[in-house]
Amino acid sequence: MTTFSEITDQLAVQAIELPSWAFGNSGTRFKVFGSPGSPRSVEEKLADAAQVNKYTGLAPVVALHIPWDKHEDYAALRRYAEDLGIKLGTVNSNTFQDDIYKYGSLTNVDPAIRQRAIDHHLECIDIMRETGSTDLKIWLADGTNYPGQGSIRGRQDRLAESLQVIYDALDENQRLVLEYKFFEPAFYHTDVPDWGTSYVQVAALGDKAMVCLDTGHHAPGTNIEFIVMQLLRLGKLGAFDFNSRFYADDDLIVGAADPFQLFRILCEVIAGGGYGPDSGVAFMLDQCHNIEDKIPGQIRSVLNVQEQTAKALMVDREALAQAEVEGDVLGANAILMDAFNTDVRADLAAWRESRGLPADPMAAFLESGYLAKIAEERKGGKQLSWGA
Amino acid sequence: MTTFSEITDQLAVQAIELPSWAFGNSGTRFKVFGSPGSPRSVEEKLADAAQVNKYTGLAPVVALHIPWDKHEDYAALRRYAEDLGIKLGTVNSNTFQDDIYKYGSLTNVDPAIRQRAIDHHLECIDIMRETGSTDLKIWLADGTNYPGQGSIRGRQDRLAESLQVIYDALDENQRLVLEYKFFEPAFYHTDVPDWGTSYVQVAALGDKAMVCLDTGHHAPGTNIEFIVMQLLRLGKLGAFDFNSRFYADDDLIVGAADPFQLFRILCEVIAGGGYGPDSGVAFMLDQCHNIEDKIPGQIRSVLNVQEQTAKALMVDREALAQAEVEGDVLGANAILMDAFNTDVRADLAAWRESRGLPADPMAAFLESGYLAKIAEERKGGKQLSWGA
Amino acid sequence: MTTFSEITDQLAVQAIELPSWAFGNSGTRFKVFGSPGSPRSVEEKLADAAQVNKYTGLAPVVALHIPWDKHEDYAALRRYAEDLGIKLGTVNSNTFQDDIYKYGSLTNVDPAIRQRAIDHHLECIDIMRETGSTDLKIWLADGTNYPGQGSIRGRQDRLAESLQVIYDALDENQRLVLEYKFFEPAFYHTDVPDWGTSYVQVAALGDKAMVCLDTGHHAPGTNIEFIVMQLLRLGKLGAFDFNSRFYADDDLIVGAADPFQLFRILCEVIAGGGYGPDSGVAFMLDQCHNIEDKIPGQIRSVLNVQEQTAKALMVDREALAQAEVEGDVLGANAILMDAFNTDVRADLAAWRESRGLPADPMAAFLESGYLAKIAEERKGGKQLSWGA
Amino acid sequence: MTTFSEITDQLAVQAIELPSWAFGNSGTRFKVFGSPGSPRSVEEKLADAAQVNKYTGLAPVVALHIPWDKHEDYAALRRYAEDLGIKLGTVNSNTFQDDIYKYGSLTNVDPAIRQRAIDHHLECIDIMRETGSTDLKIWLADGTNYPGQGSIRGRQDRLAESLQVIYDALDENQRLVLEYKFFEPAFYHTDVPDWGTSYVQVAALGDKAMVCLDTGHHAPGTNIEFIVMQLLRLGKLGAFDFNSRFYADDDLIVGAADPFQLFRILCEVIAGGGYGPDSGVAFMLDQCHNIEDKIPGQIRSVLNVQEQTAKALMVDREALAQAEVEGDVLGANAILMDAFNTDVRADLAAWRESRGLPADPMAAFLESGYLAKIAEERKGGKQLSWGA
Repeated sequence: MTTFSEITDQLAVQAIELPSWAFGNSGTRFKVFGSPGSPRSVEEKLADAAQVNKYTGLAPVVALHIPWDKHEDYAALRRYAEDLGIKLGTVNSNTFQDDIYKYGSLTNVDPAIRQRAIDHHLECIDIMRETGSTDLKIWLADGTNYPGQGSIRGRQDRLAESLQVIYDALDENQRLVLEYKFFEPAFYHTDVPDWGTSYVQVAALGDKAMVCLDTGHHAPGTNIEFIVMQLLRLGKLGAFDFNSRFYADDDLIVGAADPFQLFRILCEVIAGGGYGPDSGVAFMLDQCHNIEDKIPGQIRSVLNVQEQTAKALMVDREALAQAEVEGDVLGANAILMDAFNTDVRADLAAWRESRGLPADPMAAFLESGYLAKIAEERKGGKQLSWGA
Repeated sequence: MTTFSEITDQLAVQAIELPSWAFGNSGTRFKVFGSPGSPRSVEEKLADAAQVNKYTGLAPVVALHIPWDKHEDYAALRRYAEDLGIKLGTVNSNTFQDDIYKYGSLTNVDPAIRQRAIDHHLECIDIMRETGSTDLKIWLADGTNYPGQGSIRGRQDRLAESLQVIYDALDENQRLVLEYKFFEPAFYHTDVPDWGTSYVQVAALGDKAMVCLDTGHHAPGTNIEFIVMQLLRLGKLGAFDFNSRFYADDDLIVGAADPFQLFRILCEVIAGGGYGPDSGVAFMLDQCHNIEDKIPGQIRSVLNVQEQTAKALMVDREALAQAEVEGDVLGANAILMDAFNTDVRADLAAWRESRGLPADPMAAFLESGYLAKIAEERKGGKQLSWGA
Repeated sequence: MTTFSEITDQLAVQAIELPSWAFGNSGTRFKVFGSPGSPRSVEEKLADAAQVNKYTGLAPVVALHIPWDKHEDYAALRRYAEDLGIKLGTVNSNTFQDDIYKYGSLTNVDPAIRQRAIDHHLECIDIMRETGSTDLKIWLADGTNYPGQGSIRGRQDRLAESLQVIYDALDENQRLVLEYKFFEPAFYHTDVPDWGTSYVQVAALGDKAMVCLDTGHHAPGTNIEFIVMQLLRLGKLGAFDFNSRFYADDDLIVGAADPFQLFRILCEVIAGGGYGPDSGVAFMLDQCHNIEDKIPGQIRSVLNVQEQTAKALMVDREALAQAEVEGDVLGANAILMDAFNTDVRADLAAWRESRGLPADPMAAFLESGYLAKIAEERKGGKQLSWGA
Repeated sequence: MTTFSEITDQLAVQAIELPSWAFGNSGTRFKVFGSPGSPRSVEEKLADAAQVNKYTGLAPVVALHIPWDKHEDYAALRRYAEDLGIKLGTVNSNTFQDDIYKYGSLTNVDPAIRQRAIDHHLECIDIMRETGSTDLKIWLADGTNYPGQGSIRGRQDRLAESLQVIYDALDENQRLVLEYKFFEPAFYHTDVPDWGTSYVQVAALGDKAMVCLDTGHHAPGTNIEFIVMQLLRLGKLGAFDFNSRFYADDDLIVGAADPFQLFRILCEVIAGGGYGPDSGVAFMLDQCHNIEDKIPGQIRSVLNVQEQTAKALMVDREALAQAEVEGDVLGANAILMDAFNTDVRADLAAWRESRGLPADPMAAFLESGYLAKIAEERKGGKQLSWGA
């Protein structure tokens, strides 16, 4: 097995992108519970996100969601972030909360509504120019609830047309990243339900269009690391939305439901060249902290990714390849499990200290008093959740 | 096959209970779309529900949800309903929208919160005495999102204790009906996840406690008609919450996603003695009309149940039993499919007319102008959705 | 709705391909039950298959499986089939029953084993030249059972290489059709687990490579008609393997588990240009009659496909398109359901008679005495099942 | 967290029962691959099983499967086992491989076949008296493949009657353990599909009837540790059949697919009093080593159980209870994860050595030359698989 000291250079380049909306309130259709101190402005979201980076050194970028994070002065917002030691990242579009999108946005049978949805994306691209963001992430709620409600073929063709217009508006250094989702909020069909559909759509657009893999957006039992491998093989894995789930799109903390799955995913990321700043693969979180504290929830998340990344980097790949050639099923599996079963936490703590970070980021943050401070300071005003 | 004319007496006794909340707005965590004319009061919900009964003759009862349908004068509400030709039915409790229930209600580790949840149910029982309702339906959002968050055993024991207090407060003619749900809004475990748990909890309480089966609350692939059979065999099927789904708890129109499944469920209901007013099994709808019109959605729903009930009543049960004895797999299946494949719509239309109902309830309702009328009349005010 | 008389021309061109192996014994890993009269030779399988065509007029082609249907004189076999009024169709390869394929065939890390698997396919192509078959169907059992057992990327690359060699050996009029499967017999990953993988593999090969969609080979809840739409849109739907399932790859009679799903699939086939002899889409059955009689099982299957095809052809597509434009969710769904709820059986019976076929093919076959005859004649010898 | 040294007394009492059939060949419906040295007799199976115990000290009991392990002299077999340092355990009945059971055994509509199935169980009880076994394990393949094929209610009632006859034949010290399974080999319904059904059947029998939980026999997404908790709470968890799966009843090595799930299950076992010789809960393996070596596969399995048991024993339950009271979701989860993330392998190795066992049982076994020896010695004869 590769030793911990051999992998620290690689660990040092890890950068995870946090979603601004993870710091606001979120919930289910049944209830959105609030938390004391939840942000009331984009600036407060960024301040909270900066805390995650301060204690972990892992999260230097924050993704925005438009219109939730709409701002009158993006240049100022960018400076605000930079003063906090972070930068603005992916811009996520939103075409699912306006009443006009009841029957779809980019796929809508009504050309006027499609144009509205396209225009929203063009606005996002404009914002990207101001924020310095390079990725436009598109997740569509488009789909139907009842068989017959819409022509699923017609919708697919219109999706291609709409995406082409958006794609053509991208600058040279910008990318379009198309997310897929198995179901929800559409309950009969979704217009981009699987990696295959996202792939064929972005492949038709060109080199600047990529697939986004949200780990919670698959059918039960789907082998996600296989999809990671395939998209890397095809050169089309643009971004992850990390989270975890037991059932559907539960949006739990990444690594919470099945840490071994996260490990396997990261093994394929590394094996397929998807790790590191030059890989072109964005590591993003997309989670809902419905009942747990939000900033600690994000700290726990990036630490989970870091721990499993360390283990995945330590896998003895040569031994693995040799075992495969020998048809040694149990031996090969043991080599992989050897890395997974290793407890890397003490090594990670010591390494963090060597870099001027707290050995235990969670404890350090909790002791800092930040949570009590924002609970005290942020009284009054309207806490933000999934809405502008 | 039994002929249509032989089953009309049985069809005539069918009564389906409508949920008051189906007439308000509902949606997903992503968006709740409104509709013109959506009710702004309990009375308007009842008026809409009465329309469904007026055109179908199938829906004489409306279930209430407390506190969504809280009213200052339940006796007056009852009279209001009766004047509309319907009556008030099951009272559904709600312990998932108050901030105190963030970590559970009847199962909460905090005795004060448990008492609050118990008290809410006692209040519901009081309301039942005023409305003349006999069924208290309990669906709990209780559960946890992360392994370790709570003792699932401790929660189960507290659930038993809380239910006992509620049960003991029931009048002789009242029942407690406990619903189970696979997941959502809890994403690691729910405290009543399956029929087995609901069964052992209500069996411990006594004869007035029953299980409620919501057709959307099961793991993928679950054979629901088997559970129907088993609960009827055990004398513990108290109520249905009908709806349909392709994925999770999609709450689509009953019969929309898999009409054959609805037919099979009704076959077991009839075979097991669960059909008709003396069976003690309440047929209730529990659906969300997120994007379709609500009153027509409910009309379509009760008609779907009626059509599949007619087919299920027409199954040649003697021939089926004979085929089983002969080991004639394909023959037995063909007997069942013969009923399912029969188009009963023309017969149903003629029979409706013979009873003074419109042959085509949907067309008659749409032609009535009611939707335009409420869209016009119900301007201003706050449309109701899943909230008080 | 389109009337039945308007669709008979289209019904008349329907041709479903039967799998030779459906007439032999099949079962589960727990038990393979035999039936009196099960075939002991390829000729007896063909004779049984011809019965299905004789009574239904729907099944003029029989697919072979090599080596199960290996024969010393394919030209003779072809004449034998033609004398029975049928012809030989798709050749299915088999690289999962030889001991050398324990760790994979076309993806095996051992080049000698890969070559053996490639050679087997070259042999199949030779057989196709003799039988006049145009389609080589490849379903691979390749995969792994334990994480780490093999490099899933390496296997994917080797798959591409192996397929290229096979593809290059095809004649101009021959096609390679690549099937995908979610799981089984491999239990951690399969090398072609989903339509996306099959698509990218065949797209890399060229125009003569297509995807095969087996309706039982998907994750729970997968919207299969969406995949049908997408593959037709991409021009890559080569063939169906029809069957049905409640759980996994149950291989039940097509239309038995969810007739509405079969109807929806056929609606997309028709809408996307996948119906009829010029479409290039082969309609094949792939089922296991574990406990039911085999010939009647196949008769039931082709009749199920025919009934749902008739309904799908009758859908009022203009009205559907209009309802979509109007955002009439319930109206659109009703238009679709109107066709599904129609009982086409009497019309089909009359139309069959008009073409010299029995009105009730199942009854006619059962009355023919064929089952008793083969039970009597085929005593002794070894009944065939999934083995050479 | 509890330290390793504090849990060694509890670790020392762990005893896992091995299935005799795991040492024979097994596979899928597609292929059963053989291995050099696979046993040709019950004695050879026992000899192989004894190897697992020799190197791990964890597996002193072997379960038999009748008729696969039928023997002319069970007393001699018992002595043979004892000479190997192991003993004979649970007797598993088999009513799924005789042709008469095509449509069911204990639930068959034919009373003569039911009697045959009952008689088989009475024979098993007789064998138990000779082998000294106390548990009769019943897993039924009974079910149907097509809706309508059988009355699922009638089958359930007959199941109750048949079980009663078997139950009444038990000696005072004997138990009946009823397994449930979601599906396979029956593909429409199984007669004991879920824990609820198994529970109500054994509860009706009496104190000597218990439920068996096979970890692979659930619907996708099922929370298995919840069922463990519930059955322990009800006093009805009789036995485990341990294995793991990614998809269906894959029968992979326990802990291989989701080690965190195994840990959670063991946490509930321990919390609910299901651990240790006095608990009445039998820890059994039930796996198929389709492609991996069998004896090493079993060694890996018992070590996986031991490792996760050690972690589960180390959970700081007091801290967990405190965190729950405080509503500290992330803190509680962290306490649980702290134990799971701990690497106990070095401690276990040292402890093994202190008890005279090899530090690395797998390495020690592989170095022993046993596999080469049996490959050499066991030439000729018929290797055993799932058949008598």
